[in-house]
Amino acid sequence: MSNKQPKTAISPTRVEDYPEWYQQVIKAADMAEMSHVRGCMVVKPWGYGIWERLQSGLDQRIKETGHENAYFPLFVPLSFLEKEAGHVEGFAKECAVVTHHRLVEKDGKLIPTGELEEPLVVRPTSETIIGRSFAKWIQSYRDLPLLINQWANVVRWEMRPRIFLRTTEFLWQEGHTAHASEQDAVKETYRMLEVYRSFVQDELAIPVIAGEKTPAERFPGAVNTYCIEAMMQDHKALQAGTSHYLGQNFAKAFEIQFSNADGELELAYTTSWGVSTRLIGALIMVHSDDDGLRLPPRVAPRQVVIIPMLNKAGEEEKVLSYCREVEKQIKELYWDGFPVRILNDERDVRPVDKKWQWIKRGAPIRLEIGPRDIESDSVYFARRDLGPKEARGVRRAELDDAIISALGEIQENLYNQAQKLLEEQTYRNITTWDELVEFFTPENKEKPEIHGGFVLAKYCDNSDCEDKAAKMKVTIRCLPFEQTKTEGKCVVCGADATTDALFAKAY
Amino acid sequence: MSNKQPKTAISPTRVEDYPEWYQQVIKAADMAEMSHVRGCMVVKPWGYGIWERLQSGLDQRIKETGHENAYFPLFVPLSFLEKEAGHVEGFAKECAVVTHHRLVEKDGKLIPTGELEEPLVVRPTSETIIGRSFAKWIQSYRDLPLLINQWANVVRWEMRPRIFLRTTEFLWQEGHTAHASEQDAVKETYRMLEVYRSFVQDELAIPVIAGEKTPAERFPGAVNTYCIEAMMQDHKALQAGTSHYLGQNFAKAFEIQFSNADGELELAYTTSWGVSTRLIGALIMVHSDDDGLRLPPRVAPRQVVIIPMLNKAGEEEKVLSYCREVEKQIKELYWDGFPVRILNDERDVRPVDKKWQWIKRGAPIRLEIGPRDIESDSVYFARRDLGPKEARGVRRAELDDAIISALGEIQENLYNQAQKLLEEQTYRNITTWDELVEFFTPENKEKPEIHGGFVLAKYCDNSDCEDKAAKMKVTIRCLPFEQTKTEGKCVVCGADATTDALFAKAY
Repeated sequence: MSNKQPKTAISPTRVEDYPEWYQQVIKAADMAEMSHVRGCMVVKPWGYGIWERLQSGLDQRIKETGHENAYFPLFVPLSFLEKEAGHVEGFAKECAVVTHHRLVEKDGKLIPTGELEEPLVVRPTSETIIGRSFAKWIQSYRDLPLLINQWANVVRWEMRPRIFLRTTEFLWQEGHTAHASEQDAVKETYRMLEVYRSFVQDELAIPVIAGEKTPAERFPGAVNTYCIEAMMQDHKALQAGTSHYLGQNFAKAFEIQFSNADGELELAYTTSWGVSTRLIGALIMVHSDDDGLRLPPRVAPRQVVIIPMLNKAGEEEKVLSYCREVEKQIKELYWDGFPVRILNDERDVRPVDKKWQWIKRGAPIRLEIGPRDIESDSVYFARRDLGPKEARGVRRAELDDAIISALGEIQENLYNQAQKLLEEQTYRNITTWDELVEFFTPENKEKPEIHGGFVLAKYCDNSDCEDKAAKMKVTIRCLPFEQTKTEGKCVVCGADATTDALFAKAY
Repeated sequence: MSNKQPKTAISPTRVEDYPEWYQQVIKAADMAEMSHVRGCMVVKPWGYGIWERLQSGLDQRIKETGHENAYFPLFVPLSFLEKEAGHVEGFAKECAVVTHHRLVEKDGKLIPTGELEEPLVVRPTSETIIGRSFAKWIQSYRDLPLLINQWANVVRWEMRPRIFLRTTEFLWQEGHTAHASEQDAVKETYRMLEVYRSFVQDELAIPVIAGEKTPAERFPGAVNTYCIEAMMQDHKALQAGTSHYLGQNFAKAFEIQFSNADGELELAYTTSWGVSTRLIGALIMVHSDDDGLRLPPRVAPRQVVIIPMLNKAGEEEKVLSYCREVEKQIKELYWDGFPVRILNDERDVRPVDKKWQWIKRGAPIRLEIGPRDIESDSVYFARRDLGPKEARGVRRAELDDAIISALGEIQENLYNQAQKLLEEQTYRNITTWDELVEFFTPENKEKPEIHGGFVLAKYCDNSDCEDKAAKMKVTIRCLPFEQTKTEGKCVVCGADATTDALFAKAY
């Protein structure tokens, strides 16, 4: 390696210190920051703009599959949580608990008073509260399926918060459905996982592996949990979405019953599924480079940014008016069914600083326009996914086409780069425990910060083996839907294997 | 009055029992219900669909005026609330207080544990929490104006909850801005009130009176509060939106400072403004009739509903396929810049029941299609804002035009009806205390359930007079921007008046 490192906008780089690089990308892109309230984040406009894009894209897919949005209370009475044994076991431990409903002032200090008879928990998830409503709404098989989604904030007290990945409060959507048969409910569970898979792939440009969770990793109270797992650039896995088949567990706890076509009373079968602001963490860790964020055009709040190159006095009027013309021209373009989202950045900031701000924020296309460009009736056209050497002048007459094709290419390029990493760092030839240990031991690696990968290996379905791997922080991310169906021995214990499993370190 | 009452879908009628009528409209329209959690509501899909329309319409206007969305923590540390004296005085009293962050199980019961060092309040509003962030973000005059909006849930403990109007948890947007000068901040306060006024008028078809609140009705901590007031069908006022000029009060409390062009440190001037799910309460009370909800097309989740009139066996295929054709045809229509929102209601429910469901839910246009309509290649076309006698057959060839013009007419008609009531029930000729008392005393009225109205009268600006009126539950809703500028005597005390004031009973 040469001593002369290329200068990067983000320091440290991914190789130097991946976790710190992640924090620095978020800061440099002005996306979010931890707040003064322990474990809670402030999502700043650029980060929230990305969330708005995710929301509207996913919301459309959720509605297209027949679901309707609704809104349920923020608070869950303790007695609701106590109803489903598996659920309370797994969930209710780290919660924000409301115990009082009034404050009195005393010597300039506020003191809680008005103690509640029954404390309330700020929802960590809403199975219990929505289950209670479903029990009321569902009478007959004609009321089924009941397909509801909620966009909401939830709270899970975090001891080690990490921005976007693990925060005490986060934003999410949670789908909750009830069905007349096991078959229908299972079908729904798979269907929504597929909605997540295609959404994450098509909009976020993140390839994922879909599969079933092992019993140890199931949602508390679920019969089965399915998930999609993505690979970050440090080769760790991040769970990007989950879909749970809840069987009749919650229906039993909350008496969600319906009379079937023969007039007999039956318990409904329910599902739930969710994705959260965690997806923004995945987006950052999959696509960003050592100069900051890189955004797939479909979720970029601004897809094109114009930077008027005002470096000399006297040129202002000419440059600004040309930039406004270009802005107007591009505003009329449509890509992917929506008007192109453009910003003409006229702020009173040095052009070179603006340029670096937009690089770090990951705007897909940057147009720099100065007096010389105007003379040749062209713009300096830079793609965030390509190096500066590939920036080029584009004539005004060709600008529309250049933008439309670049947006599609950037979306595809980011996906392909992520897909390439996933393929390169997925290992299928590890067959013994020693090989597995060797593979996941950072001390053996040239770049210990970034090591390992996904291991698709044989597994005997015995949780002891899962526990053994967990001791070196390697977990079974899922039993992939795509199975080799070959015979083999469990990578941990050597007994006959029953399934392929995806082993990885994970967020 | 005749003994033979017309049959209505909602019982009681407005005249019989207005508050109960309101509850029954919400129930019949399947919009929302109170939950098992005290004071909190569940917003069901039809109600939430209306909220989504409000949200997207208002969000667009908020963005068009240069604001960006962001998201701030749900929790406010007590010490934050203690910082602004006027604010804590008015607000912090009825709040949900989080005191613990963990639960332990003991004999099947969950017990709060992990007491917080500093209790947290679930945000009743976010001036304090956002003020803290603004102080961090703002350094120089170049950072101003800072124009932020947040869509969020807030909690104010309600002793007498009333669905959509006063609930412990509600949904809203809250704008928060910081400016370099008083003039800019005041301008922003007025500008956002005007955004609300035009939004409520154009989208919700609700006419309002805009003005300034008296000191007694100001937002806690504000220098000035401006509002829009709407008239419900019982002639009471409902505050539909507020915009606050906060001066430097919050800037002082949270040290929101900037260095001006001369490098001197100054305190910023801030504003805040919000509307909430309460607007849905206004929408219901302004437009509904004794058959249920009536929705302005701009905020209707479905603007057109097709009801296949399947009354005889053997006609099913023919009717359903014709209805689907009509659905397809209408789906291609655009009105008001968006595709027409249509539902072809194929549920397994009797057509007559469906018809009444959609009347009660207030769908603007109902198309009933049976075998006889199909024979004449036409549909039965009913407008919710007109009586059943005005429903008519419309030929397929003329259907597109009929829908497009009806949507515009319904939007206008609902506004005009509300405007007519506002005009008829606004009194400008009440000049003495005795007349005011007489006007607002229900016992004197033929229909005591619905009485009174808006009284535009002279006021001396002395809060004693305001307090006197308040004893009979009449408040000064605002000092309207539109002033007669005539001389006169205060309607309460007879002293020289300084302003026109709007007196009314209110929600």
